Amino acid sequence: MSAPDLSSLTIAVLGGTGPQGRGLARRFAAAGLDVVLGSRDAQRAQDTAATLADVGRVRGASNADAATAADIVLVVVPWDGHAELLESLKGELEGKVVVDCVNPLGFDKQGPYALRVEEGSATQQAAAILTGSRVVGAFHNVSAVLLEDPAVERIETDVLVLGDDREATDLVQALADVVPGMRGMYGGRLRNAHQVEALTANLIAINRRYKAHAGVRVTDV
Amino acid sequence: MSAPDLSSLTIAVLGGTGPQGRGLARRFAAAGLDVVLGSRDAQRAQDTAATLADVGRVRGASNADAATAADIVLVVVPWDGHAELLESLKGELEGKVVVDCVNPLGFDKQGPYALRVEEGSATQQAAAILTGSRVVGAFHNVSAVLLEDPAVERIETDVLVLGDDREATDLVQALADVVPGMRGMYGGRLRNAHQVEALTANLIAINRRYKAHAGVRVTDV
Repeated sequence: MSAPDLSSLTIAVLGGTGPQGRGLARRFAAAGLDVVLGSRDAQRAQDTAATLADVGRVRGASNADAATAADIVLVVVPWDGHAELLESLKGELEGKVVVDCVNPLGFDKQGPYALRVEEGSATQQAAAILTGSRVVGAFHNVSAVLLEDPAVERIETDVLVLGDDREATDLVQALADVVPGMRGMYGGRLRNAHQVEALTANLIAINRRYKAHAGVRVTDV
Repeated sequence: MSAPDLSSLTIAVLGGTGPQGRGLARRFAAAGLDVVLGSRDAQRAQDTAATLADVGRVRGASNADAATAADIVLVVVPWDGHAELLESLKGELEGKVVVDCVNPLGFDKQGPYALRVEEGSATQQAAAILTGSRVVGAFHNVSAVLLEDPAVERIETDVLVLGDDREATDLVQALADVVPGMRGMYGGRLRNAHQVEALTANLIAINRRYKAHAGVRVTDV
């Protein structure tokens, strides 16, 4: 089976003005893909896109316009407002591959912890709202610091891709594979997305203990 | 800070007659540690211990006698009966480091999935029951197949150690470190144990897709 061809596809990153969204956009643009950053504020998205102009093809737009323009739409918004944003873009996202990258986490004086999500996970919440889209979960555990650092040439991590739609998970695995060092790997069904999202709390705890930018590799694959 | 010295300690493995328990016992014994396998049926534990006699110092006992004999007690029993066993051994486990290794998982025709646990995780359930013990979670994501295979000399995986008691997590990290290839790593507080337990469902899904015995490595640490 040959890997899906991504070269003709446009990738939207909703919430693309935050560190994680900017970082992912940087890496996809550096790999030669066409990227549209989305934000509630189109001007802000355009300003952020301008900072990535020397990396590759990155433009900015409103979240709705970015969703409309793209073939694959990454959702990289804060957990607060996740459901609301997706409900507002249900039409624009119809029929598209939507990649939820959101980690529902809380923080208190003891550090990070996973929030309980009624639908089970952010990814399952997205799937429950976007009934006409092909929802996949991925890119949960990738360090924004590393993604955003131009001096970091390789992101040595596996991206666990969660989903029930094989064609969609294969496509998103191929998307992860365009980033040097990164490897897309099927990670289980949508119902097993919660623990991958929540594991980010552990990685943050590890980062604090070991002064690191921890990522995950799966061994023996 | 020097690593804790484990050479004078006895390690109990409750539920030590199952694949995971046998495999861990094999690896600790091979590293020169004193190991007691525990089982509901002492004779069965002794029979299993006899199969490991050429590996190192492994003996069998009832779960209660194994708990009494040991300094560090690993709990490797099936999720069904987890609470019941720990309640029955509350006295024997008083003051000891108890390492919960249990993954509350269900299986159906779509494969593995994480069960919801009222206390949040098996490890937190153990801590709620064993209020006089020092409860840590660890060894959740280690392949029993690899542990049990005498031809596998190195177990290339990181063991995430969850806990709120630094001395206890340091000790359990050192215990993981005795196995060649294995690295004990602090993985967060008890309240972040659920996702590490549940991640085993993803690893099983990965094993099925990729015909592997998947483990986890944390990068940049």
